[in-house]
Amino acid sequence: MGDAKDLLCVDAPLSLKRRLIVPKKLLCGPGPTNMHSRVRDALSLPLLGHMHKEFAEIMDELQAGTKYLFQTLNKMTFALAGTGHAGMECCLTNLVEPGDKVCIVKSGIWGERCGDMVTRLQGIPCFVESGKLGNGIGIESLEKVLLAESPRLLYVAQGESSTGVQEDIAMIASASSTHKCIVIVDTVASLGGVPFKMDEWNVGCVFTGSQKVLGAPPGTALVSFGADAVQKYERRRTPVTSYLFDLANNAKYWNIEGFGPRGYHYTGAISSFYALREAIGVVCEEGLIETQRRHQDAATYLYAKLKEMGLELLVSDPKFRLPTVTTVKCPSHVNPLTVTNYLMDNFLLEVSGGLGPSKGLVWRIGLMGPNANRDTVDCIVDHLKCALKATGSSHL
Amino acid sequence: MGDAKDLLCVDAPLSLKRRLIVPKKLLCGPGPTNMHSRVRDALSLPLLGHMHKEFAEIMDELQAGTKYLFQTLNKMTFALAGTGHAGMECCLTNLVEPGDKVCIVKSGIWGERCGDMVTRLQGIPCFVESGKLGNGIGIESLEKVLLAESPRLLYVAQGESSTGVQEDIAMIASASSTHKCIVIVDTVASLGGVPFKMDEWNVGCVFTGSQKVLGAPPGTALVSFGADAVQKYERRRTPVTSYLFDLANNAKYWNIEGFGPRGYHYTGAISSFYALREAIGVVCEEGLIETQRRHQDAATYLYAKLKEMGLELLVSDPKFRLPTVTTVKCPSHVNPLTVTNYLMDNFLLEVSGGLGPSKGLVWRIGLMGPNANRDTVDCIVDHLKCALKATGSSHL
Repeated sequence: MGDAKDLLCVDAPLSLKRRLIVPKKLLCGPGPTNMHSRVRDALSLPLLGHMHKEFAEIMDELQAGTKYLFQTLNKMTFALAGTGHAGMECCLTNLVEPGDKVCIVKSGIWGERCGDMVTRLQGIPCFVESGKLGNGIGIESLEKVLLAESPRLLYVAQGESSTGVQEDIAMIASASSTHKCIVIVDTVASLGGVPFKMDEWNVGCVFTGSQKVLGAPPGTALVSFGADAVQKYERRRTPVTSYLFDLANNAKYWNIEGFGPRGYHYTGAISSFYALREAIGVVCEEGLIETQRRHQDAATYLYAKLKEMGLELLVSDPKFRLPTVTTVKCPSHVNPLTVTNYLMDNFLLEVSGGLGPSKGLVWRIGLMGPNANRDTVDCIVDHLKCALKATGSSHL
Repeated sequence: MGDAKDLLCVDAPLSLKRRLIVPKKLLCGPGPTNMHSRVRDALSLPLLGHMHKEFAEIMDELQAGTKYLFQTLNKMTFALAGTGHAGMECCLTNLVEPGDKVCIVKSGIWGERCGDMVTRLQGIPCFVESGKLGNGIGIESLEKVLLAESPRLLYVAQGESSTGVQEDIAMIASASSTHKCIVIVDTVASLGGVPFKMDEWNVGCVFTGSQKVLGAPPGTALVSFGADAVQKYERRRTPVTSYLFDLANNAKYWNIEGFGPRGYHYTGAISSFYALREAIGVVCEEGLIETQRRHQDAATYLYAKLKEMGLELLVSDPKFRLPTVTTVKCPSHVNPLTVTNYLMDNFLLEVSGGLGPSKGLVWRIGLMGPNANRDTVDCIVDHLKCALKATGSSHL
């Protein structure tokens, strides 16, 4: 089997012998946000095995907590050892079959991303757009596409982190239901920051990530599938291309009625699931409504402060504003990156530039999890004023 | 957009309001193992953004460290925010196209798992087995299948954690190369514990997990693709079904020559990548050869202690023994689970029962990462003696 005395052809990189040192930053971009202390403490708890009874209890708690966050009684609710993108891929991989038409609401980059995944799965994407950057879609354009295309599935991001748009999920889900179209909602950037009611709104499938309002590190996702979505999965004519994301495999590991008893699927991400449990615990302690109110309050306070500075929001219609990620128009004489770089270099403060359709046009300010409060807003605004002044961008 | 004052239909689970408490166990099953302290400390470092320059440096270090572990100069080397199973799925999803024949070496459950994934991808699996539980495959049976089936790809687990078998990768890769067959090696249970030389042995593709010899929490994987594997990917007639695992997308995020500059692919698992960096750092500090020697020494010491107790190993031929996971035959009058339960209940010590073909027949003792040392062996053996006596299983 070879010999341990053999010479190595690749040497150990010297830098890895040194311990990792990381600066402490204030993360007020579109995510990740900073961790809650309860979450941070959980990460260094001792490891358990992925089939130990104590870990099974944590998995049960994660399921119960996820149902609370999504406001659902769906049995098919669980966490994934993967980022928000893995959540999106899990939902689409289980639900899209070759030839399936998928209506995609596109108000930023997430619709494009979904289109990429749907195409890989040999589904047929059709897009519906608001027509104006910074607007959500209206009922008329949605109805038109639903009628013309009769899609099996519809994808929409409740919070579009690239444009700061919040879509009206209750309206979209209601219209889609009428057309027997299963709605998949991406709540990565929104969950916990705005109301979301899976069962009441008749949402078919939902996913979120850990690193936004939940204030846990990126690397885990939460998903839930309603009865119609599970039925679509069960009636597939082709196997799910992914073993990891396959619904039945996950359902067995999560001991879900009809699929259990709990059996080995993959090695759960122990420490990350600890962190996720604690992150959901923080929302349970505060209360979901109170958490949402705090996020809305911080955003409203930020809007007022920005207005005082003479800055405008990209999302002009208040009903489409996403409180967790605010897109601020960068004045035309200012290079947005000069300012964000200054904030990072001088204050270790992250405010982001645009992404996708908002690139070069905006700053994106995230107020999520432990950072959704007025003190953090004051800090951001003070630093932003300094940065505008110092970079010669101030016209205020 | 709804009203935060609305009533909730699902209440917060009470148990989540309580902070998580986890017992400290000695994990000597087939993984996860216990964490190195350097790894544990890294988990609670402050978060960075996934596109920050400090995080890009960590990604560069992870790449360099992974090349050292795999002993390769392959550019296409990176980490994944997913468990060892995600590593397997990443390799197969990129390399298997519909109709591709994949030869699968089956000496335990991992070959079966690979067969499941290959079938989902519309590949055609053909199996080669040793014919005897606890043996690795020989050159004759391998040559026979390679000649008869002319597979494009071959999958083999260097360490079969279900049976404790170590396969001879140098031999298998050499035979496969002659038949222009790309070898994919699963080193999840073996890497760092036994020699592995990707470039010298002409291995086409490799993956490993974080929670074995590396002593990091489960949830990250490392992969490397050689030039032939990358060429097979680039000549695909069909798109890779997964956006997340797609080689070009990952290569861009990891700033790999020909695919960069670094761009957003998904939100990297910040804390888990910190932990992985430190875990690889521990191997760099000790040295790869010294790490392998320590694992071999601990295993050899365990074999002697078990022999003194009158216990036999499942893998009778020393050249097929995997030092990281030892399968011990459970005497026929003993229920293996009575003993493992006793060890867990009384000593918080994990020793596992069998899995797949070894179920009900063996105990599996893992000596990996910080647990690969003689003191740990002494502790396991003392407790095992107690357990056999207390459960009336002792015939010694």
